[in-house]
Amino acid sequence: MPGNSFGQFFRITTFGESHGGAVGVVIDGVPGRQTIDLDLVQKWLDRRRPGQGDLVSQRQEADRVECLSGLQDGVTLGSPICLMVRNTDVRPEDYAELSTVYRPSHADFTTDAKYGIRAASGGGRASARETVGRVAAGAVANQIVQASFPGIEVVAWVESVHGVTASVDPLTVTLAEVHQSAVRCPVPESASAMIKAIEAARADGDSVGGVIGCVVRGLPAGLGEPVFDKLEADLAKALMSLPATKGFEVGSGFAGTLLRGSEHNDAFVAVPGIHGPTATNRSGGIQGGISNGAPVTMRVAFKPVASIAKPQDTVTKDKKKVVLAGVSGRHDPCVLPRAVPMVEAMVWIVILDHLLRNKGLQLDSTKV
Amino acid sequence: MPGNSFGQFFRITTFGESHGGAVGVVIDGVPGRQTIDLDLVQKWLDRRRPGQGDLVSQRQEADRVECLSGLQDGVTLGSPICLMVRNTDVRPEDYAELSTVYRPSHADFTTDAKYGIRAASGGGRASARETVGRVAAGAVANQIVQASFPGIEVVAWVESVHGVTASVDPLTVTLAEVHQSAVRCPVPESASAMIKAIEAARADGDSVGGVIGCVVRGLPAGLGEPVFDKLEADLAKALMSLPATKGFEVGSGFAGTLLRGSEHNDAFVAVPGIHGPTATNRSGGIQGGISNGAPVTMRVAFKPVASIAKPQDTVTKDKKKVVLAGVSGRHDPCVLPRAVPMVEAMVWIVILDHLLRNKGLQLDSTKV
Amino acid sequence: MPGNSFGQFFRITTFGESHGGAVGVVIDGVPGRQTIDLDLVQKWLDRRRPGQGDLVSQRQEADRVECLSGLQDGVTLGSPICLMVRNTDVRPEDYAELSTVYRPSHADFTTDAKYGIRAASGGGRASARETVGRVAAGAVANQIVQASFPGIEVVAWVESVHGVTASVDPLTVTLAEVHQSAVRCPVPESASAMIKAIEAARADGDSVGGVIGCVVRGLPAGLGEPVFDKLEADLAKALMSLPATKGFEVGSGFAGTLLRGSEHNDAFVAVPGIHGPTATNRSGGIQGGISNGAPVTMRVAFKPVASIAKPQDTVTKDKKKVVLAGVSGRHDPCVLPRAVPMVEAMVWIVILDHLLRNKGLQLDSTKV
Amino acid sequence: MPGNSFGQFFRITTFGESHGGAVGVVIDGVPGRQTIDLDLVQKWLDRRRPGQGDLVSQRQEADRVECLSGLQDGVTLGSPICLMVRNTDVRPEDYAELSTVYRPSHADFTTDAKYGIRAASGGGRASARETVGRVAAGAVANQIVQASFPGIEVVAWVESVHGVTASVDPLTVTLAEVHQSAVRCPVPESASAMIKAIEAARADGDSVGGVIGCVVRGLPAGLGEPVFDKLEADLAKALMSLPATKGFEVGSGFAGTLLRGSEHNDAFVAVPGIHGPTATNRSGGIQGGISNGAPVTMRVAFKPVASIAKPQDTVTKDKKKVVLAGVSGRHDPCVLPRAVPMVEAMVWIVILDHLLRNKGLQLDSTKV
Repeated sequence: MPGNSFGQFFRITTFGESHGGAVGVVIDGVPGRQTIDLDLVQKWLDRRRPGQGDLVSQRQEADRVECLSGLQDGVTLGSPICLMVRNTDVRPEDYAELSTVYRPSHADFTTDAKYGIRAASGGGRASARETVGRVAAGAVANQIVQASFPGIEVVAWVESVHGVTASVDPLTVTLAEVHQSAVRCPVPESASAMIKAIEAARADGDSVGGVIGCVVRGLPAGLGEPVFDKLEADLAKALMSLPATKGFEVGSGFAGTLLRGSEHNDAFVAVPGIHGPTATNRSGGIQGGISNGAPVTMRVAFKPVASIAKPQDTVTKDKKKVVLAGVSGRHDPCVLPRAVPMVEAMVWIVILDHLLRNKGLQLDSTKV
Repeated sequence: MPGNSFGQFFRITTFGESHGGAVGVVIDGVPGRQTIDLDLVQKWLDRRRPGQGDLVSQRQEADRVECLSGLQDGVTLGSPICLMVRNTDVRPEDYAELSTVYRPSHADFTTDAKYGIRAASGGGRASARETVGRVAAGAVANQIVQASFPGIEVVAWVESVHGVTASVDPLTVTLAEVHQSAVRCPVPESASAMIKAIEAARADGDSVGGVIGCVVRGLPAGLGEPVFDKLEADLAKALMSLPATKGFEVGSGFAGTLLRGSEHNDAFVAVPGIHGPTATNRSGGIQGGISNGAPVTMRVAFKPVASIAKPQDTVTKDKKKVVLAGVSGRHDPCVLPRAVPMVEAMVWIVILDHLLRNKGLQLDSTKV
Repeated sequence: MPGNSFGQFFRITTFGESHGGAVGVVIDGVPGRQTIDLDLVQKWLDRRRPGQGDLVSQRQEADRVECLSGLQDGVTLGSPICLMVRNTDVRPEDYAELSTVYRPSHADFTTDAKYGIRAASGGGRASARETVGRVAAGAVANQIVQASFPGIEVVAWVESVHGVTASVDPLTVTLAEVHQSAVRCPVPESASAMIKAIEAARADGDSVGGVIGCVVRGLPAGLGEPVFDKLEADLAKALMSLPATKGFEVGSGFAGTLLRGSEHNDAFVAVPGIHGPTATNRSGGIQGGISNGAPVTMRVAFKPVASIAKPQDTVTKDKKKVVLAGVSGRHDPCVLPRAVPMVEAMVWIVILDHLLRNKGLQLDSTKV
Repeated sequence: MPGNSFGQFFRITTFGESHGGAVGVVIDGVPGRQTIDLDLVQKWLDRRRPGQGDLVSQRQEADRVECLSGLQDGVTLGSPICLMVRNTDVRPEDYAELSTVYRPSHADFTTDAKYGIRAASGGGRASARETVGRVAAGAVANQIVQASFPGIEVVAWVESVHGVTASVDPLTVTLAEVHQSAVRCPVPESASAMIKAIEAARADGDSVGGVIGCVVRGLPAGLGEPVFDKLEADLAKALMSLPATKGFEVGSGFAGTLLRGSEHNDAFVAVPGIHGPTATNRSGGIQGGISNGAPVTMRVAFKPVASIAKPQDTVTKDKKKVVLAGVSGRHDPCVLPRAVPMVEAMVWIVILDHLLRNKGLQLDSTKV
């Protein structure tokens, strides 16, 4: 199977280069008779869009989503939904130099190594612009899931930026708290410190990375497959396939390795509490690859953005040393705020995929 | 696609419950005319096997591998290889209580929630015994890859146990150094400390977790797909599908979020050095989802084993509170040493899968 | 995806060469809590087995099925079911000559062309013995489907042998009528004539082919996908993947091309009749790729068996002309009777796969 | 896997309803650095288009193809190619009645049964308009294959219309001969008779079906997998997934069942002749599921078009009897001429998919 599709039952295929005609997604496996509000899809894309303020990239992209198929009067037909966004802010001349120079920690060199050809401008498929299709599909998945399971919530937030860390309670954090912050951090004082860190990096022509936290609340027990397609394995793949990610944790994560079993184990309780069926939730809502009804908690590490305004040493395609001039100010010094909807989108896609998979493991005569 | 298969081109399907007739694997997508030494496969299984000493589980399993198909005089026919290991040390009576009690941080509760039925003894598919098939398939992948690409090496090691951390250089660590240690840690003094930590946990009827490091050296540039099937995403899924894993990092990982872009970027160099095409290797050998020829470095977090000898509070299937007696001493207080070959096996499988995928993206008339 | 698997949700992977250690199947996507009677599986295998009388191959194979996984006390666990049959009647010496000679209309030449290696004896994966796994899986699918949908029936029969054609009514033909005939033809006088044709071929050291008819009755409306995975397309693939098949028809088939639209169209009726929702059934129970509730009718052409007792001209691997001595009498002069359970098995697998797929297209909150 | 994708390595996903915004295809698994001429793709679409003359549908559709991604200056980037055709001749009012009436032998009833919703006008995904994406993808596959394998040719032709049958030699028939005929039959006198049969049907407000023949010449030996993904099984699925198909044959087909083995077997020859490695070609170029180098010969049956101008009895959605007025003259009385490029497209897709699969079964160190 080629590499531009994700999901088994709810299956998305993204297409489009950053400076080609359009980017988009075909969503297959859509249940019929589901109401989809394209304005909500657009809102998701707006959250993903660069140029939303001083904090993020200055590149202007209208990013108006167009639906080419699969919907009739806002209702799904059960056929593939194709969502497309035209590329309107394409300035290839900005990128002319890059066709022969390998930018440090970009995909230029590896793309050449793999395909022997590379989009003359922009990052091609390696560009963060590819995530337009993912976010649009995630917005669709969100609506479909919540129509049947209104209790399922996904909230992601910026937990840290370059070492500035917010203390966020995954049991209570809300989307509203996250959205009110330009940096998508629900703790105001931490948000301010993060903004300072980002502005300091920009002032230095540099960039910063950080960690995004994410929680799924209200997920029923029973999602995920016990062996290869464990829920955490599919989440790991989904999130580690986002650009710039370097690490993934579920539940106790790496810190859990400092505990003994007697400290780490989550005792089952007779009456469900805030952690669902268990007294604690170091499992992160998943046991043996299958959700247990407790909140699913995750953390994703994003490296500092590779495009910086400082000059850098590197080589050309024919191995000549050059100094790469810094990129213009159009690029984000920190991708974290924009990555929040990307994380949420991928998580919604995994959830819907596994909800449909579970149906596909059942057989009864009540409904064909 | 049901959840018991992994890989796209080199595709393994495992089968078997921990206390059923057998466990095993069917390997499809095997190139023809490859020499496979089953004795080497057996050696991998021996490394995975519990009961290898005081450090690991006391359960005795012969784990003799039998090849049912796909080989003729030790050479692959291009047809599926079925490798099977009979279950010989099955003592269901040891597990009688467990059919109605939900062990903390085990898959008992979630398996019931998903399937409405559960293997009466042992962990069924959630048991670490399922990994017999993975390790056997990894041993096959190892041989196939190295026959064509003798320069590719995979080395995994125990990097930490319950906070005892070894400093290991991924550029130089060898399999021999790892294998000489009962705890699979190549740094002797660290290994001793780890063994003490494990023995202390055993003495307390408790368990410990830790981190496994892994490096792939000699991997050519060009492996991995740029969008969903990024090399790191497939590695993350492969390793996060192993039992007891809670976190995954590639390259700089979570620590990389503390660096600025100018510190994190890997400058390309005119002459390949110890990090391959770059002066540093915070990328961990992968850029834009595609290998760049530098060593691929990873870390995987394993939680402390859920089975402990201490009594624990929990509930029965019908939500009655009970105290679960501790498990007998047959279980590992630390799974890390046995997990080393599991990690290596999954990594070899991902490598071979992507090597074959790359071939499947090429078209020329030299060979049909 | 390698080529030894079939089905999307109910997915089978067969393994084993005709003269290796064993043949078998791993069945994934099995719903939990389904009762499976292995004696019934054995009965299916007995129907598939050669050596059942004068009509079919004299090779003796016990073909006792062993279940290695997935069942506990005859009930499915939701995990993969591995069913294995040991190869016990292996006489490689019978095949020694064949390692260098290309048998006409066998897979010897093409296997060498593809893999550069070939099982030294027997047909390897191209042998009809590979269908042991398919038939076992079909017997499992049959039981699972009928437990939830007792009204679904699949009946296949020998419709013609070398031009001797039986007139069979797909609306009324029963399994009992088929099974009572050694040649699996439910019309006694036709069965007698077919047997004569087969015996005449055997006497001449020759072989004959024919057509198998098949009907699915009681199939609910709504199975099949509208575009590529049309029900008839999946049935065509399933049946054209059986050895020796040369043609497939659904409903009116090739004969339907002689009708005009006004003659061919199936008018919908207000009250369901013998053809379900339509007055006639030239559609063969499928419209637009989706079942309509009428019986699904199919025909499959099987060529005469390639192995004959007459000497034949052919060439060796190094292109030398030789005369191939005729095969011993152990081979079937007609594969049709044995192919009846193969056809039924593949059809049951397609039905269960599509029943589960349909579940996987639904989403509601009644059951996760 | 949802049902709107086809192919394993070269994988197409079509989208779009007949009266929605657009129809199109995303093609994944495209090798890099391949030259694609979009004008040639447009020519294929023109051949598929209705309204090309008196013989076919009068509906006017510009069907101008637009490439949204995957190409740069006409060269493939290795990323997904999205090809889109806007729907411009949408007249929903022509179809208002149809939202409540089940047209005989259309997909209206089954679509309702499956999805509980149906495109208010036109056939939705069941429309022949869905094949726009297939034909565009087939035109791409054609160019990619022939660039590396210029000797491979695919020629399809109309072999019969309503019983008027042309005698066509698959060894010699050319695309030029087929294209010069409005009815796509390379035998002029047969073409004339077919046109008369089509015109007679139109005059009667009726429709006719027929058979399309197809040959692949110059295919190397070794394509196709020995078990489920036999070359003929994949071709059968590909072609039986086209709208209106009722039957498929390869090589000797159903007629082959009238021969004995000694008459049917294809003797191998020392020197390749017109049938490649065999003296005759009743195998149709495939043995044991794998191509043998001889021409691959196929036949596909298309039923008469369901849309006719005559009034027909049928029922409404709520099971009331009605008489359906005949459709206007905009519809084809015979789909065969337009189906010729559809058949060729699907065959090219299967060929390229299997060429790439074969690469993915090979492993050597010459090229990563």
